[in-house]
Amino acid sequence: MLHDRLGALAALGATDDGIDRALFTPAERAARELFVAWARADGLRVEQDRAGNVFARLGGATDASSGSAQAAPVQCGSHLDTVRNGGAYDGAYGVVGGLEALRRIAESGEAPPRALEVVAWAGEEGSRFPLGCLGSSVYSGLTPYADVEALVGDDGETFAAAVRGPYGLLDGVPVRDGFPPPAAYVELHIEQGPVMEREGARLGIVSAIAGQRRFRVLLDGVAGHAGTVPMRGRADALCAASEIVLAVERAALDADDTVATVGHLVVEPNQTNIVPGRVVLRIDLRSVEDGRIDLAERRIRARADEIGAQRGVGVSVETIETRAAVPMETRMRLLVSAACAERDPRAITIASGAGHDAMCVAHVAPTAMIFVPSIGGRSHVGDERTAPADLELGVEALAATLLAAAHAPWSG
Amino acid sequence: MLHDRLGALAALGATDDGIDRALFTPAERAARELFVAWARADGLRVEQDRAGNVFARLGGATDASSGSAQAAPVQCGSHLDTVRNGGAYDGAYGVVGGLEALRRIAESGEAPPRALEVVAWAGEEGSRFPLGCLGSSVYSGLTPYADVEALVGDDGETFAAAVRGPYGLLDGVPVRDGFPPPAAYVELHIEQGPVMEREGARLGIVSAIAGQRRFRVLLDGVAGHAGTVPMRGRADALCAASEIVLAVERAALDADDTVATVGHLVVEPNQTNIVPGRVVLRIDLRSVEDGRIDLAERRIRARADEIGAQRGVGVSVETIETRAAVPMETRMRLLVSAACAERDPRAITIASGAGHDAMCVAHVAPTAMIFVPSIGGRSHVGDERTAPADLELGVEALAATLLAAAHAPWSG
Repeated sequence: MLHDRLGALAALGATDDGIDRALFTPAERAARELFVAWARADGLRVEQDRAGNVFARLGGATDASSGSAQAAPVQCGSHLDTVRNGGAYDGAYGVVGGLEALRRIAESGEAPPRALEVVAWAGEEGSRFPLGCLGSSVYSGLTPYADVEALVGDDGETFAAAVRGPYGLLDGVPVRDGFPPPAAYVELHIEQGPVMEREGARLGIVSAIAGQRRFRVLLDGVAGHAGTVPMRGRADALCAASEIVLAVERAALDADDTVATVGHLVVEPNQTNIVPGRVVLRIDLRSVEDGRIDLAERRIRARADEIGAQRGVGVSVETIETRAAVPMETRMRLLVSAACAERDPRAITIASGAGHDAMCVAHVAPTAMIFVPSIGGRSHVGDERTAPADLELGVEALAATLLAAAHAPWSG
Repeated sequence: MLHDRLGALAALGATDDGIDRALFTPAERAARELFVAWARADGLRVEQDRAGNVFARLGGATDASSGSAQAAPVQCGSHLDTVRNGGAYDGAYGVVGGLEALRRIAESGEAPPRALEVVAWAGEEGSRFPLGCLGSSVYSGLTPYADVEALVGDDGETFAAAVRGPYGLLDGVPVRDGFPPPAAYVELHIEQGPVMEREGARLGIVSAIAGQRRFRVLLDGVAGHAGTVPMRGRADALCAASEIVLAVERAALDADDTVATVGHLVVEPNQTNIVPGRVVLRIDLRSVEDGRIDLAERRIRARADEIGAQRGVGVSVETIETRAAVPMETRMRLLVSAACAERDPRAITIASGAGHDAMCVAHVAPTAMIFVPSIGGRSHVGDERTAPADLELGVEALAATLLAAAHAPWSG
């Protein structure tokens, strides 16, 4: 069932190199429709909210006639959108795995004391609209809905128009009032890195989602003829940039659990016979400890200043994005630990270097995450893979966590 | 006259950022037509050859009825095409300055024992067709005419079609038979670098045109998520490339009179959140001593191998262009020295880091060059400038060299 459903989703938006399923496009709407059809076939009650998030619920009051206030559900979920030429597991696994966990709980005959819910969050990848974790960010109150409505997609359409358009909100699915938070949240996801595979772990207990800081570095040197300007007296923007790239790497190597990357670098005029006059590069710096990010940033800025001064190249370092580290909630993490340890003696505690919807939901509910390994550590590519037995084990751990959480004494 | 003519040429192909005068385009044809009109107004006899080179001659037999074999002329010249958004002096100065030198010699009443000729070489900049020094290369027998005919321009048209088209060979200008070489050649040009300005020299005696070698370096690392792949175990193609950029700089700093530049570098996939999987860069390496180029190449290749091995990044270094250094001919250089020293006590001997038509003509005739300074060392840009008094001094030195060369005992 898990395998078939992941395969059916993978066919939606399939390209030669992977899967393109940007928010509110035909392929992404088809994925949400499939989610709704599966959920209903599994006997779940389906709703959506104004941000495009879709919820499928097991148990709890089925209508207002119960007369009592509805207790908040224990939630799991992930997203159905993909990066360009993305893979079949990033996001989709947490959604389909959630349905599968609820199906097994329902079949077991257990009647958990709280409703359980699977969410398909809208637009986690920043696909189409320039905001990552769009749906979960609105849901968690981190971004006002009015701000999201004004976002302009890469095709020029606003979110407000797209959400009402033919590929926006689903027909025949009730739209919730507001964004009521869950009692607790757990997200099942692929690791997207090589650590678990290297360590032989099949389940990962996420300790925290790394904080992230991004910088735009502008280097202003002096362009010149590559044949006529002597080496001494050059202000080569690319030589300066190369020293900065290596300083960024060094700053991360000198810290624990910290990664720093220059993934984007553009040379101007970028001609073989012209000394580079200008370079723009971007630094991505992450750690589960914000203090380590602070330290690495200070080291990088100090080196950038030195390099600029030594070479006569103007160097400016501008912070363009900041996201604090989000530790997982202790009680939920303990429930995840127990569920994982029981199923995998080599389960490890691991930080998430990537961002996830969980980091938004963590602002409104006790939140944790479960990882399964990525083969070769590859993700955001068409050949993103996880072993079927690991996918299966993750679903089992998720089901166990949901059940345990449903019995825990959450407020609300 | 010099100033007005340079101004008239600068208006042809003028853009917001400089001058675009690619070979066999309307602006470039207009420049050749202007050259012909000026030459005829100055009483010179004009011819062209099949490559699009245009010749304006003073003196010598005026027709075949003289009955005696025509002695080869002493030639000067440069080119009328420009790089994209180029300047008003690179090339144009040598052509207009040549006309001006001949006009002064004619007005002085001297009757040199050999004809003097100004050449406007076709397509020196590799503008439109992928061959630098196109016209002078054919003229000097370095590139067979049939090979040039087959070249495809950046608009898809062949040279063979363009040379016969509306912006190709000029109407009403006789086409020479073959490519008869001159007795000697001297080229007047702007320095295009900062050395003369720094040294306070107004005239430069070129010692040699630097040899040049170009390499394409391909770095194959492993792309990955910038947040999830730990630092140890990365094979970051941009970190490896950065070390190579600095090794290239180091190899040139450690050698005399050698320059090395990475002007072109492209990162893939060039996204902020992806560890670079691939980098392509190009190295431009030049020296007036081919042995120094050899040594620098060996050092760069050795370091590239080390860096690749240390980082687990595949590194291949491919030679894509090789041009040997061309020393100026001793007797012509001595004539240039005398003409320059007489006019500028601070005249210096200087290597040309840039290529020029002179390096082709040097294969068929004794050849030398005269430089004038470039303000701020800037060239190949719209604000390329040389002080008017220096332009004037260069023309005087050229006229003196031409006269002296016309009296020298060249064979042919």
